[in-house]
Parts: sequence; structure tokens; C-alpha cells
Amino acid sequence: MAETQESKESLQENLQQVISLLNKHRLVEGLVHKQDMPKQHLLETLVHKQNLAELQKKLDALHPADVAYILESLPLEQRLDIWELVKAERDGEILLEVSDAVRQTLIADMDSDELLAAAEQLDTDELADLAPDLPKDVLQDLLDSLDIQNRERLQSALGYTDDAVGALMDFDIVTIREDITLEVALRYLRRLGGLPDHTDKLFVVDRYGILQGVLPLKRMVVNDLDAEVVDIMADDAVVFHPEDKADEAAKAFERYDLVTAPVVDSNNKLVGRLTVDTVMDFIREEAESDMLSMAGLREEEDLFSSVWKSVQNRWTWLAINLVTAFIASRVIGLFEGSIEKIVALAALMPIVAGIGGNSGNQTTTMIVRGLALGQIASYNMKSLLLKELGVGLMNGLLWGSVLGVLAYFLYHNWALGAVMTAAMTLNLLLAAIMGVMIPLVMTKSGRDPAVGSSVLITAVTDSGGFFIFLGLASIFLI
Amino acid sequence: MAETQESKESLQENLQQVISLLNKHRLVEGLVHKQDMPKQHLLETLVHKQNLAELQKKLDALHPADVAYILESLPLEQRLDIWELVKAERDGEILLEVSDAVRQTLIADMDSDELLAAAEQLDTDELADLAPDLPKDVLQDLLDSLDIQNRERLQSALGYTDDAVGALMDFDIVTIREDITLEVALRYLRRLGGLPDHTDKLFVVDRYGILQGVLPLKRMVVNDLDAEVVDIMADDAVVFHPEDKADEAAKAFERYDLVTAPVVDSNNKLVGRLTVDTVMDFIREEAESDMLSMAGLREEEDLFSSVWKSVQNRWTWLAINLVTAFIASRVIGLFEGSIEKIVALAALMPIVAGIGGNSGNQTTTMIVRGLALGQIASYNMKSLLLKELGVGLMNGLLWGSVLGVLAYFLYHNWALGAVMTAAMTLNLLLAAIMGVMIPLVMTKSGRDPAVGSSVLITAVTDSGGFFIFLGLASIFLI
Repeated sequence: MAETQESKESLQENLQQVISLLNKHRLVEGLVHKQDMPKQHLLETLVHKQNLAELQKKLDALHPADVAYILESLPLEQRLDIWELVKAERDGEILLEVSDAVRQTLIADMDSDELLAAAEQLDTDELADLAPDLPKDVLQDLLDSLDIQNRERLQSALGYTDDAVGALMDFDIVTIREDITLEVALRYLRRLGGLPDHTDKLFVVDRYGILQGVLPLKRMVVNDLDAEVVDIMADDAVVFHPEDKADEAAKAFERYDLVTAPVVDSNNKLVGRLTVDTVMDFIREEAESDMLSMAGLREEEDLFSSVWKSVQNRWTWLAINLVTAFIASRVIGLFEGSIEKIVALAALMPIVAGIGGNSGNQTTTMIVRGLALGQIASYNMKSLLLKELGVGLMNGLLWGSVLGVLAYFLYHNWALGAVMTAAMTLNLLLAAIMGVMIPLVMTKSGRDPAVGSSVLITAVTDSGGFFIFLGLASIFLI
Repeated sequence: MAETQESKESLQENLQQVISLLNKHRLVEGLVHKQDMPKQHLLETLVHKQNLAELQKKLDALHPADVAYILESLPLEQRLDIWELVKAERDGEILLEVSDAVRQTLIADMDSDELLAAAEQLDTDELADLAPDLPKDVLQDLLDSLDIQNRERLQSALGYTDDAVGALMDFDIVTIREDITLEVALRYLRRLGGLPDHTDKLFVVDRYGILQGVLPLKRMVVNDLDAEVVDIMADDAVVFHPEDKADEAAKAFERYDLVTAPVVDSNNKLVGRLTVDTVMDFIREEAESDMLSMAGLREEEDLFSSVWKSVQNRWTWLAINLVTAFIASRVIGLFEGSIEKIVALAALMPIVAGIGGNSGNQTTTMIVRGLALGQIASYNMKSLLLKELGVGLMNGLLWGSVLGVLAYFLYHNWALGAVMTAAMTLNLLLAAIMGVMIPLVMTKSGRDPAVGSSVLITAVTDSGGFFIFLGLASIFLI
């Protein structure tokens, strides 16, 4: 009894936190609820109640995306408390909404029966999103429970990599024939009684399922009822193939302002559709994963991962960085004799390396972005390289001179100042060349240029900067 | 004559490049063109023709977004050649599609009359996007040419900052009353003869323009004609206010899978709408600007900016980095005596600083992302900080020991190895604390935590790393 009381109190505390999150982000205020009192208000009163069932009811009134947001914002233990309160029949839709890392924590907390029950509420395309996270035996039971068409769909969807259109498409397609009138088409829709989410157009196919065109709902409601579908449909729709790259499809959605688009196989047979909400989620995930991977993090880490999981997540890039830092250290080791004679070199060398790294990262970021936007091809690489060399030269002379003067005032040695200026200029030129080349070479060899290019460029400008500065100093000053 | 010939050849060369870009990105293949031969084919044959008018015609057949993409992918001179070929009446829509930086280069090439003509083809909300880039006199002429309603709309749209819903909304709203039947509503739409882009719902208002609900087209085509609007409309639509933050609105679009949403004033009066294409552009721009600003670039730089413009764009962060590097250098300067005695310190110190920087950047990136997703609030800051300290401690002991052993083997000095391990651990703890604190403090003081937090954390781990390592060495080894 005492434990239940305690658990209730802890839940109420959690919900207080959740309310502050909701308030902060206007999740709730953004909704018009005429008959209701505002949800925010409900939640605020609810923490004063003693009834778990009451708490649960309120949670059930929230949109699954909001429940997902609440789960993501809570540390593991409290997250699982709330997860227990969620009605079993909503588990599936909420699992779809949470991030991959959080989904794993929730699935780990469920037994096979619960997982199977959750999965069975979902559409085939949604199952495909969830399937990779499910235990093998649950997945097998699930496949057995599907009819032939859906099993084939699920298996084919699982056959595509995450970055293919086939993995993003859904099967909620409503098709009509081209030789009927609008009146007949509308009668058909009224018999259906409802349309899938995001339906902004019907797909016009022939008797073999070959796509003939698309009929936007917009056109259905403004044209005469006796018009034929073939006369008002659009036959220049943007179409995709399941094996197309998802990020090219995302660009097409942005470019042509699409809401849904048909997916066809190589015979132009309609196999599914892409919707803007899936594409938008994909864009957001890509942008986040780029940002995280540039810093040497994998996307799977959730904010409240355990220390041990976080260490595993981050160690790869730290280890790579350790190797590059060690190489830079050995470069300095080559010149220990020079440093012993002029100890000022030790104090000045990190400046040359650091500015080179910053400048190289700027160049690399520009190139990575240009590559992502498809604006870089063989014909303009030369002009890009020349431009970056120009920028490096100007910055090198400018900031190198500033530092040369500073070095002169600190150590009263004009030759040291001159070496500083020269080393800075040369390292910025090196940063420009490598800043362009590293992402290009990574792309040519089939890698994602965003991942780790920052670590690589820094490695080059560190070792290179130390070598150039200490080398010049050894020649001209010793 | 000779000049024309040359200019023609240069254009044809450009188009060859453009074709390779288009092919690479399947822009053209992605479109179904039944009656047409594929556009790609047309473009390929077109470079063999001698006729400028022919080239122009083919360019005019492209979607404005594709023309924008071509313009963005070309260096300045060739870009302006192609821009000259674009029909004047398409200038407006293409200016809307190009990036800000490229837009400025195109506008700089147009005279006031051309600009005014281009602007007059646009809707008020589109004008609002273009207006900030227009010369003052053109903007004034434009305001004078508008009727009162549109002038007021433009002025109010210009009054909102770029990150407010008011700056993103458009005015293409179709409204109906709630007390009519579906049949009457459909008859009204047929009289209109067409609906604005992205219309997935009509807005239901009373006689004073107060929003009562929304009527999705989906529901219009599946319900009985004698149903009343009030019975089938949704009265729980997500609504926004013009002064709402755009990135909160973007999150709501993602969360609730919206295509369009009404924007209302404080009296619930309908003033405009938000559409998913605008929101998607906003998300893409935000993600890019975050990525660029973390590297110390402003978003305005285009890939083919002049050297001089690029230098200006990048100098701020280089200068800041110069100051922080100089501070780190002075920290080393404090310990020149120690370095003179044990020159190995000079070779080892960049490792301590470098790994600290990498680890700190990982922490900062996690926190910046958590802040962007709204998952961090005062109640979970303590657990986040403890987690990061735990990660820092483990990584410090782990990698510090590896380095300590390496240092021992290099310099046969076990005390040096021990100092290395201790310094590494302390610097990673410093990186963890500052990696959490810097973005939080920047957010508290109203700044964007993404901008420059990487430079700041590196500054701390550099100076801190040098100080800790050289300080410990001076105490225990000298």
C-alpha cells in the first residue's frame, strides 16, 4: 500500500514536469477545444487527484505524438512508469512516434505477447518501421499472423534499406479507373465512407494496375459531375520507384511541393504511395543524424541513455581522434630539439594548428552542404578549389600578419614573427585543399561526407600545422 | 556577330553541365511525361542547335524549382547568362525558389523596372518573402501599386521576424459557413472553378470571420450531399497565431501530420493559413543554418560567392578563434620554464587538449539537440550533468590510461604517464561540465545554442587542458 502511494506520488511529480514541458512548448494551447476545457488545465488539476485511473484517462486523451514526446522527455525509470499507464491498444501507434533509441527502451520493457498485440494494431507499412526493433520470435509470429498480400508487402518493405523509397512508402492507396465520370467516382467514395490520412489525390490505374495519372481531390470538388476522370486527371505526376533514394525523393517533395506521390515498379504498376509526413520525418532525422555524426555521435543515443551505453556510443570517434592526436604529438616529437632551444615555439604552435582547423572546418562544411544539395560536380570542382585557396591565402596573410606582429611584441624576435605569418598562410592553404578534397574523396568512395570529415580535417591541419611551423622554425631560426 | 557566337557556345556548354546535373539527380526522369519525349532527351538534343530562342524555350518548359536549382549550381557569370534567358514573367516565381544568397546575385543584375514587373506577378505572402531583398525605391513603388487589403497584409507580414508564423503564412484561404449543406458548398466550389495549392481543407467561419472549424476535402467527398457543414467539420483543428514561433509550428506540423492549418488572431478571427511546403522549407533552412553556424559560417554564403565575400562571411569566427587560441597560447606561456626542462610536455599537451575538445563537442551536440527538441528543462538538468560527468570520468580513465602507458613507453617516465592520465581525466570532466553548461547558459541568455558553442567549448578544453596538464606536470615532475 505504501509503495502504491509512493508510486502515485512519483507519477504525479512526473506529470508536473510534463505539464511544464507542455506549457513551455504550447503543445496544448495550440489546439482548439471548444467543448473541452483546455487540456493544459485538465492536466494541471489532475496532479491533485489521487486516482491512478484518472491519470491514465487523461494520458489516453493525448495525441499519440504528444505521449511520445512526454516519454522522450523523461529519464528511463519515470518513462517506464508512464509507459505502464498507456492503454495497451495505443502501444503500437505510440511506438511508431518515439525515436529509435527511446523505442528500444520501451520494447525492452514489454513481453512477447504485449509486443505482438501492439504490432497487430498497425498497418503493414507501419509494421515495417517497427519490425527491425522487434525480437526475432515476435517478428516470426507476426509474419505468420498476416494474410499473403500483407506478408509479401512487409517482406518486400523490409528488403529495402532505410534510405530507399521502398522503406518509406505506405499502401493506403485509393484507385479509380479513367473512363468513369466524376459523379460515379464520387458515388464510389461515398460508399467507401472514408479516405486514408493525407489523401489529396486518387490514383488512376487501368485494369492491370498500371498508373495512368492522378486525380487531385481539389479537382474533384470544382469540376462538373459529368466530366470524365481521364479529362480532369493530371498525367504528369511526379512518380517514384521503390529503389529510389529517399533523400532524392525528399528533395522532389520540397521542390515540387508534393503532399502524396505514387510509387510504381519498373512496369509502371502502382505499388504504394509516399506521403509528406513520412518525408518530413525523414528530413528531420537526416538533418539530426548529420549534425550528430559530424560531432562523432551515432543517432541511437537518447538523452537519458545510461553512462555505459553513452560511452559505447562515443568511443569510436574518440579512439580515432586519439590516434590522430597521437600522430600530431609524434610530429612535435620530431622537433623537440628546436623547442628546447626556442621554447616560445611550444606556446605558439597550437595557434597555427587551431586556426587551420577552424578554417578547414568552414571549407569542409560548405563542400558537404554543396554535395548534399547536388550542386557540386566535376566541372565546377576546379573553380571551388581556386576559390577556397583564394580565401585561405587572404585569411592566412591577414591573420598570419596579426599573429606575426603579436609574436614579435611577445618575444621581440622579428624572424619568429615572420615564420609565424608564413606558417599560418601555408597551413590555411593546406586547410583549403584538404577541406575540399576530403569530402569529395569520401563521396567518391561511397561514404557519407558528413561523417567524420570534421575529425579528419582537424587531424590534417593539426599535424600539418605543427610540421609546417616547427619545420620553418628549425630552418630559419635555429 | 563573333561575340554572339561565342556567347551561344558558352551557353551550350553551360547547358551540357546542367544536363549532367539533372541526370545525376533524376530530376527529369522522375516525371511521367506520356505525350512528351523525356525532358532529358530534349535537353540533350538542344545543345546541338544553334538557336538561342530554342534554348530559351526549353528552359521555359522547366519547373521554376528546377530553374532555381540550375541557377544555384552555376558560377556567377554563367548563372547570369542563364538568368537573362529566363522569360521576364517567370522571374518572380524563380526568385522565390532560389536561396537567399543566390537571390541577391540575381536581384543585383536586374533594374528597378524588371524587379517591379517580377514582384507584381506574386501573391502578397510571396512578396513578403522577397521584399527584404528588394531595393527601398522598388519596395515603395510596389506598396503604392497594391490595393489597401494587400498593402496592409504585406506590411503586417513584414512586421514579423523570420522565425514567426506571421512571416510564413499565406492568404490563400477559402472559407464557408457552417449552416449550409454539403451540396451548397460543392456548388460554391464549382463556381470558384479552382482551389489554391495545397488546399486540403476549407475554413469554416461565422459572419464575422471567426473560425468555427475546418472541413477537410476528404470529408466532403465521402459524406452525403444533404449533410450540413457543421455536422461533418472538425472543430478540434490545430490553429496558430501570427506571433507564434515558426519552429514550434514546424514541430506541430510534424507531430500532428498537418498539410495546412488556420492562423487566427487573438479574437480567433481567421487571418491566414500555414502550408506544409512552407513549413518543410523552413525546417530545411533551419537545419542547414544550424550546421553552418556550428562551423562558424553564416547562411548567406553561396557556394560560388566571390573570395572577398567569403572572407567577410568567415572572418568573425576566425577572429574569435584567434582570440581563444591566443589565450591558450598564453596559458602555455605561463609554463615555458617547465617545458624547457621537460620538452616532452610540448609534444603531449595537444593530445590532452584535443581529446577534451572532441569529447566536449559530443556533449554539447547532445545538449543542443535536446534543447532543440524541447526535452531539457530545469528538472532534468541535474541528471543530465551527472550522466555526462560519468561518461567523462569513464572515458578519461580509459583513454587517459592508454595514453599514460604510451607516454611511459615513449619517454620511460612513469610519473609523466601518471600525470597524463590524471590530466586527461580532469580535462574530460571539465569538458562534460562545460559541454552541458555552455549551451544552457546561451539559451538562458536568449541566444541560439548552436551558434558558436563548438568554438567556445573548444576554447575551454584547449586552455583548460593545457593548464591542467602543464600545471600537474610543474607540481609533480619538476
